[in-house]
Amino acid sequence: MMFDVSYLINELILPLAAVFVNGFVCKNSMDVKAEDFFFDGLNPGNPNKLGSVVNLVNVEKIPGLNTLGISLARIDFAPFGLNPPHTHPRATEILTVIEGELYVGFVTSYLNGGGNKLFTKLLKKGDVFVFPQGLIHFQFNKGHTNAVAIAGLSSQNPGAITIANAVFGSKLPISDDVLAKAFQVDKKTVDWLQAQFWRDNNN
Amino acid sequence: MMFDVSYLINELILPLAAVFVNGFVCKNSMDVKAEDFFFDGLNPGNPNKLGSVVNLVNVEKIPGLNTLGISLARIDFAPFGLNPPHTHPRATEILTVIEGELYVGFVTSYLNGGGNKLFTKLLKKGDVFVFPQGLIHFQFNKGHTNAVAIAGLSSQNPGAITIANAVFGSKLPISDDVLAKAFQVDKKTVDWLQAQFWRDNNN
Amino acid sequence: MMFDVSYLINELILPLAAVFVNGFVCKNSMDVKAEDFFFDGLNPGNPNKLGSVVNLVNVEKIPGLNTLGISLARIDFAPFGLNPPHTHPRATEILTVIEGELYVGFVTSYLNGGGNKLFTKLLKKGDVFVFPQGLIHFQFNKGHTNAVAIAGLSSQNPGAITIANAVFGSKLPISDDVLAKAFQVDKKTVDWLQAQFWRDNNN
Amino acid sequence: MMFDVSYLINELILPLAAVFVNGFVCKNSMDVKAEDFFFDGLNPGNPNKLGSVVNLVNVEKIPGLNTLGISLARIDFAPFGLNPPHTHPRATEILTVIEGELYVGFVTSYLNGGGNKLFTKLLKKGDVFVFPQGLIHFQFNKGHTNAVAIAGLSSQNPGAITIANAVFGSKLPISDDVLAKAFQVDKKTVDWLQAQFWRDNNN
Amino acid sequence: MMFDVSYLINELILPLAAVFVNGFVCKNSMDVKAEDFFFDGLNPGNPNKLGSVVNLVNVEKIPGLNTLGISLARIDFAPFGLNPPHTHPRATEILTVIEGELYVGFVTSYLNGGGNKLFTKLLKKGDVFVFPQGLIHFQFNKGHTNAVAIAGLSSQNPGAITIANAVFGSKLPISDDVLAKAFQVDKKTVDWLQAQFWRDNNN
Amino acid sequence: MMFDVSYLINELILPLAAVFVNGFVCKNSMDVKAEDFFFDGLNPGNPNKLGSVVNLVNVEKIPGLNTLGISLARIDFAPFGLNPPHTHPRATEILTVIEGELYVGFVTSYLNGGGNKLFTKLLKKGDVFVFPQGLIHFQFNKGHTNAVAIAGLSSQNPGAITIANAVFGSKLPISDDVLAKAFQVDKKTVDWLQAQFWRDNNN
Repeated sequence: MMFDVSYLINELILPLAAVFVNGFVCKNSMDVKAEDFFFDGLNPGNPNKLGSVVNLVNVEKIPGLNTLGISLARIDFAPFGLNPPHTHPRATEILTVIEGELYVGFVTSYLNGGGNKLFTKLLKKGDVFVFPQGLIHFQFNKGHTNAVAIAGLSSQNPGAITIANAVFGSKLPISDDVLAKAFQVDKKTVDWLQAQFWRDNNN
Repeated sequence: MMFDVSYLINELILPLAAVFVNGFVCKNSMDVKAEDFFFDGLNPGNPNKLGSVVNLVNVEKIPGLNTLGISLARIDFAPFGLNPPHTHPRATEILTVIEGELYVGFVTSYLNGGGNKLFTKLLKKGDVFVFPQGLIHFQFNKGHTNAVAIAGLSSQNPGAITIANAVFGSKLPISDDVLAKAFQVDKKTVDWLQAQFWRDNNN
Repeated sequence: MMFDVSYLINELILPLAAVFVNGFVCKNSMDVKAEDFFFDGLNPGNPNKLGSVVNLVNVEKIPGLNTLGISLARIDFAPFGLNPPHTHPRATEILTVIEGELYVGFVTSYLNGGGNKLFTKLLKKGDVFVFPQGLIHFQFNKGHTNAVAIAGLSSQNPGAITIANAVFGSKLPISDDVLAKAFQVDKKTVDWLQAQFWRDNNN
Repeated sequence: MMFDVSYLINELILPLAAVFVNGFVCKNSMDVKAEDFFFDGLNPGNPNKLGSVVNLVNVEKIPGLNTLGISLARIDFAPFGLNPPHTHPRATEILTVIEGELYVGFVTSYLNGGGNKLFTKLLKKGDVFVFPQGLIHFQFNKGHTNAVAIAGLSSQNPGAITIANAVFGSKLPISDDVLAKAFQVDKKTVDWLQAQFWRDNNN
Repeated sequence: MMFDVSYLINELILPLAAVFVNGFVCKNSMDVKAEDFFFDGLNPGNPNKLGSVVNLVNVEKIPGLNTLGISLARIDFAPFGLNPPHTHPRATEILTVIEGELYVGFVTSYLNGGGNKLFTKLLKKGDVFVFPQGLIHFQFNKGHTNAVAIAGLSSQNPGAITIANAVFGSKLPISDDVLAKAFQVDKKTVDWLQAQFWRDNNN
Repeated sequence: MMFDVSYLINELILPLAAVFVNGFVCKNSMDVKAEDFFFDGLNPGNPNKLGSVVNLVNVEKIPGLNTLGISLARIDFAPFGLNPPHTHPRATEILTVIEGELYVGFVTSYLNGGGNKLFTKLLKKGDVFVFPQGLIHFQFNKGHTNAVAIAGLSSQNPGAITIANAVFGSKLPISDDVLAKAFQVDKKTVDWLQAQFWRDNNN
């Protein structure tokens, strides 16, 4: 195969070359510039069907974040908007409310017959709450006005798993044998739920 | 308050003194013994109502594991037994089948309009599969015979979150407003599911 | 010495017992509650003499943050307020502007005859900027209106070193021999600078 | 030099592109598939001359393990088979016996006039033992039947250093001046030992 | 673009291929040789204008150090030579004096109204001192004879920020509005200082 | 039990309270002082029977090193002195020669039929060499004059395992069945070696 290598260079090699491993900057660190540490759109977007929208600034949006172990998100809530139960597989989240109020909670990990406890708080403007790494958590705007939160996450690529979507809306679907047994419902209910999420999974 | 400090010493201080931080052993490391690195019961237990039972050997069972970043589990499956969709908030799992067969899978993290994909395999004896940190995964024995797996986990305290139990069976329950919206079902369905899990949450 | 151990228990032992090491929760984890993950005062304070005020929510304010590797700050700026050149010895900072505008910058680390470069940006509302771990950085409100920023930091105890204060205002003072030579000024200038910071070091 | 770059792409660039750094998946993560997390041969092999065989599933066998900090091994023992004293330079090992019995041990690190202690246990089926990172350890089947163990290791690339082979059988050999002095034997004994291991070093 | 890919291979790809990630050695590890772990010039150099010279052996000089988290430096001091106040953004330093004497110190991080304290020691030959990660520190030879120190640093790429140079001598300069306010001097003084460092910044 | 708690406080609680976890300083950090970062005896000692002496400054000698991930050693060699084959289970070592010459080497980890290679160098004054974490290495003074080295290690508690002592001189001894098989010698030779090391193990 003989071909133009500019794609190769621009799309595969340079992005890799931009990677720092544990603080070791490659030679072309001389080409780093302010833009590599900048992103200009942490703005509200269009709420999804649950009335919320998450804008996450991670290493895909700011390449200079790589290996630095942090990212930042803005979450906007319409009245009665919900950021539904989800986890970040690689990050703890610390969140503050900058507008409105949010009812928030997380469920602890199962531990020797204990754990599996729900911890909740009603957060007002200026309140701060922590969602420890990997735990299922949610934020809910119970009020008639908008709410806005800013959150820090302890990874440059925290990931997000929306429980309902991952369980009932994955591509390909999880076998309904598995889900019926796990959720203790009949397969028809599972199939109906999966149909919901297949159709609407445009979060 | 004036009182007998032996409880104080034996229950609170010595366990703390046993903690290594990053390999630094406290003075009473002279008292460490083989038993601190040993556990004698990685045996099958009684399957739960889903037909599986997990026996996890973590830092609570082997104190010498502290700071060493690993634990081990044995999972037994009755015919058609299920280890239902769950996550380990602080660990990757690598599993091998030592008896029978298992149908296993995990769902990837959501990522920029991609992700949320189901990856599955039918594992035979001697096959190995990896469930990356924090991702939702399950193991299902589709066959008429027992199955047994051994798994390593990359934390001395990996934690486990059974999705259905954490979502519908937490103590206290998550508000049905939240769950009805998240799962796109009516509150009655949520209340019924929560009743299931409240009654039976003896995993 | 024979005495009441209640202080001992409440002030020394229990706080230690609350420490997680790498996710291992001590036995009294059963006593953890929502308040351990909550702080209710990420509000603006009174600007210091440079026209800024930093409100940092770290592990001292939220004990549940321990080992989780993240904290959050709010920074308020009066018109022409400055958060002067400083470093966080244990954290990267990712900041977004939620009100007004900020002129921000950092200086890269010295590297083989390169480095020591200033990178700056004028940030508007919704813009995000990253200050990599340990690098000297500042935020300056060049405008006639207030400005507000929220920042995530990649440590539960990031620390902060305000350069001018650490160099000229430490308790005890750095020898003026050292500072005169380092800054290439005469000792009188150093002594005058040190007098400034000794008197006013109430950041 | 002008040449076909397909080797370049397939052998050098794509494997690199497959590397995650701290959870950051490169763009071609879209091409990740179940096979990247799967290995189908954790089976017994032919015992070596000491009567044991180690089958290690690390990042070379499962590329998806990269950065995930774990691997898994199966060790088979003929009657009186020995997994001789060795270390894993980058991992702690947690092992369980699934068939037969094993006599196992490790020697602690030297510490201020203490340490250098041997800890041993006779493990039966279902027993678990931990070999902390970097310590010399062994497993010995003292019985007349086969034995089998499964072990988790806290690195995707734990490494293994068989002491006798590394000391007396390295390619090139360690100077017999060094070994004679270290082991307090004459050079002839060292030379004889080195000849043994050079000839047979086909572990 | 159609061109000779030898530069591409030699300068961009092979150096990347040499990177280990968390101990995972790429396939061409077979080509690793003793030279990759060796450097032959930790010798004294020519003191700079402050009378000191730092010779740092990091991952740029020894490629095999990558991911190993350590580097080594030799620092030579002429009589009255100063290694001026600086930080290492990614490393703790542990230093010993092997010739002469050194007056050393560091300033602690600011903490809740405390911190910002100077800790100093006069080190004689054989004394050891620790400068914790990211804190401002200096070493000063107060005597009429040369002094030499060897230091270990806890990163393969510790970085170095000389405070005076980074603040007053960066390329481009920090705005004198910022510096005048931060150091509480008038802009003319700042401009004069910046001129000093622009002219002489050949550390 | 009713007793004087001063021992309890001074010996058990305060040392624990001095521990930082990931940079989090306990309240009594106000009592930290320069001495916590200082050690005054990195001097040559009396060579052992092999003609070398290691003086390691780790967290036991400098409490302030805890969690900082580094330590420092001085190694003195008489003519023909040997620092015999050993490993550091928790650290990489970077060493420079400050007097005389040293012949040094390490053996790589076994890897898929490769590895187990000896890498050596003759180091002169000013040369630097790296011994990667956990690998067996040695330093040998082949000359008629003394030699001195300084080494940084990437852990506050690197540990040291002298191979010959750990294998043949542990307290209790490793079974001669195990060692005879591992080293391919008869049990009498093992017993004789063990007698050597039991008698002389005063390193």
